Amino acid sequence: MKKLVLLGSTGSIGTQVLEVIDQLKPLWKVDAITTNKNVELLEKQAAKYKPSFVLINDKDSYDYYKYKFLEMNIKVLQGMEDLNYLAELEDSDVIINALVGGVGLRPSLTALENDKILALANKESMVIGGELINKILKEKDSKILPIDSEHNAIFQLFKKHSREEIKNIILTASGGPFFNFPVEKLKNVTVNEALNHPNWNMGKKISIDSATLMNKGLEVIEAHWLFKKDYENIKVVVHPESIIHSMIELIDNSIEAELGVADMKIPIQNVLTFPKKTNTNVNKLNLLELNGLHFYKPDYENFPALKLAFKAGKARGTMPTVLNASNEIVVDAFLHKKINFMQIPILINEIMEKHQNKKNPNLIDILLVDEWARRKTEEVI
Amino acid sequence: MKKLVLLGSTGSIGTQVLEVIDQLKPLWKVDAITTNKNVELLEKQAAKYKPSFVLINDKDSYDYYKYKFLEMNIKVLQGMEDLNYLAELEDSDVIINALVGGVGLRPSLTALENDKILALANKESMVIGGELINKILKEKDSKILPIDSEHNAIFQLFKKHSREEIKNIILTASGGPFFNFPVEKLKNVTVNEALNHPNWNMGKKISIDSATLMNKGLEVIEAHWLFKKDYENIKVVVHPESIIHSMIELIDNSIEAELGVADMKIPIQNVLTFPKKTNTNVNKLNLLELNGLHFYKPDYENFPALKLAFKAGKARGTMPTVLNASNEIVVDAFLHKKINFMQIPILINEIMEKHQNKKNPNLIDILLVDEWARRKTEEVI
Repeated sequence: MKKLVLLGSTGSIGTQVLEVIDQLKPLWKVDAITTNKNVELLEKQAAKYKPSFVLINDKDSYDYYKYKFLEMNIKVLQGMEDLNYLAELEDSDVIINALVGGVGLRPSLTALENDKILALANKESMVIGGELINKILKEKDSKILPIDSEHNAIFQLFKKHSREEIKNIILTASGGPFFNFPVEKLKNVTVNEALNHPNWNMGKKISIDSATLMNKGLEVIEAHWLFKKDYENIKVVVHPESIIHSMIELIDNSIEAELGVADMKIPIQNVLTFPKKTNTNVNKLNLLELNGLHFYKPDYENFPALKLAFKAGKARGTMPTVLNASNEIVVDAFLHKKINFMQIPILINEIMEKHQNKKNPNLIDILLVDEWARRKTEEVI
Repeated sequence: MKKLVLLGSTGSIGTQVLEVIDQLKPLWKVDAITTNKNVELLEKQAAKYKPSFVLINDKDSYDYYKYKFLEMNIKVLQGMEDLNYLAELEDSDVIINALVGGVGLRPSLTALENDKILALANKESMVIGGELINKILKEKDSKILPIDSEHNAIFQLFKKHSREEIKNIILTASGGPFFNFPVEKLKNVTVNEALNHPNWNMGKKISIDSATLMNKGLEVIEAHWLFKKDYENIKVVVHPESIIHSMIELIDNSIEAELGVADMKIPIQNVLTFPKKTNTNVNKLNLLELNGLHFYKPDYENFPALKLAFKAGKARGTMPTVLNASNEIVVDAFLHKKINFMQIPILINEIMEKHQNKKNPNLIDILLVDEWARRKTEEVI
């Protein structure tokens, strides 16, 4: 039985990981689960999976509720240092990082430094720490298995090809809820409209990122570091049906694609059964029910976040950290109705322009810039 | 430099093989080329590639034109026995079988018995001799590389997976020139209408087979033997754009697909550079120019040839030989305007029903049944 540490067990990915594990049982022992402050769900999960550890990131929630878990004979942890501790637990086999945002970076680094298999749903840690992460991967026996449906698809398609045979990565983007939306109305879209993704049911932050196309931008940077491809060789096409999860273009001009229903349980299971595949109870894709698969050029003008991400990615250094941190703050501000939808990329760009980029950053550099960008963005808002 | 024997060098596939070789030069030495009776083109090819052997299958053409090649100091062969001889030439590395029809079987068997790499465009040899061929492959060091775009796509996708992980093969079919054609007009379609394939520019026989869907039926049987999948696990979907060349469905319900422009030079190059891929000058697929990719259920009622092929394939034994031989005769009769389009499957079915199937046939059984079916079909016409 393999031991799993599941960081972010109460979020959208975390709960789906547990659903897949229910199906794969008894292959996996869920040994640690964590939440920011959704203690109610964490408690249910703890009762069901009987982990050795739970972690409540939010200090007040921890203080108030820890007794519930102590009564179950489960060790209760709190805060960033303890998240890190879970990422290096000696007898764990796999760390799933399903945290939201840049906070995921340190546990990712810790897991990789401790020769763990890191199943990565937290794309932000790759966006801001990709350079550091790749240095660790060179030195250690650790491994990253990407959970993002696009990167999981590419990861599988890369198999059996030498690196020289792969010319381009083609990331598909749904286009989000505002694909082909009247431009003049974009300024006034509501939070609910932005959260209403046409194909995927996801957490709030990633749903807004999908609406701005920033999510695809972060994925471009993630793909750059995961697959070591230049930005010129990472293409984005809007594919509103989200059936093709991504593609690779080979040097003989053939393209290989991975298709399936829009269900994160497929890549999650893939990662948990890696390097094998196993049966699943997720829905089969019925090609005959599809109303065609379409491909369009992304609208870089009205969704400038994607352009900003390419720019930050190419700049390297601490610029992706600024992009990501600033994005987290403005998305939160949008969710709290402090700014409108079109201000999201404008504000991020403003902070990026103020930033003095630092090349080859170490972890301290990244964390300091992360803090700076968050503070600056708050100020500007 | 590798030595190539190219059976059927003046046909549609044969000429494209030579185009690809021109590009890959000086990797390949074309050591033998053959034609049925297109001596004019064979002569040009001989002057350019300076093979050791040419073969003219048609006896009259051979008698009349052999001196031309003798003057070039090229050995000139004729007929079936000599085709076989070319398939076992001691110092050849790869045999490309681009012959049309069941006549391709013996050279295929000979090549495989002599531990050659057989690049197979002649699907008929797999249809009628699949069982025999698989027996030889088990005993010998030989190998088949499929050239058919569908099978080449599947061959490449299979590489990435263990057999148990692959649930279904999904063969795409263009639907041919009569997809969505008014049924009542099918009876009166002309030869030129039937030859006018919407996506691929191919030889006459395969073009008619595409129009009746028999081509897809033969491909189903070919896929059964090449990839050792039950007929229940070989699906056909009509995909009028012919951009997805075929797919595999995995046990985790994900699907992998191979896409590209409709250009046989891609699979041909793949086979010639196997197991690597190399650069090409064929057109790139531009996803943004596509008007959507669509999928439909095949019309088994109005195109019963596909149903007949499944039936013959499942019956095994000599039944696929009857299907194929009878089809060759009726297609020829249609091309010579002796029968109408709708009579093609009706006549094949008639012959299949007259046939006493023989299980586990040897080569003699197959050749005798092949002859019987051709004679019977001629009689019925």
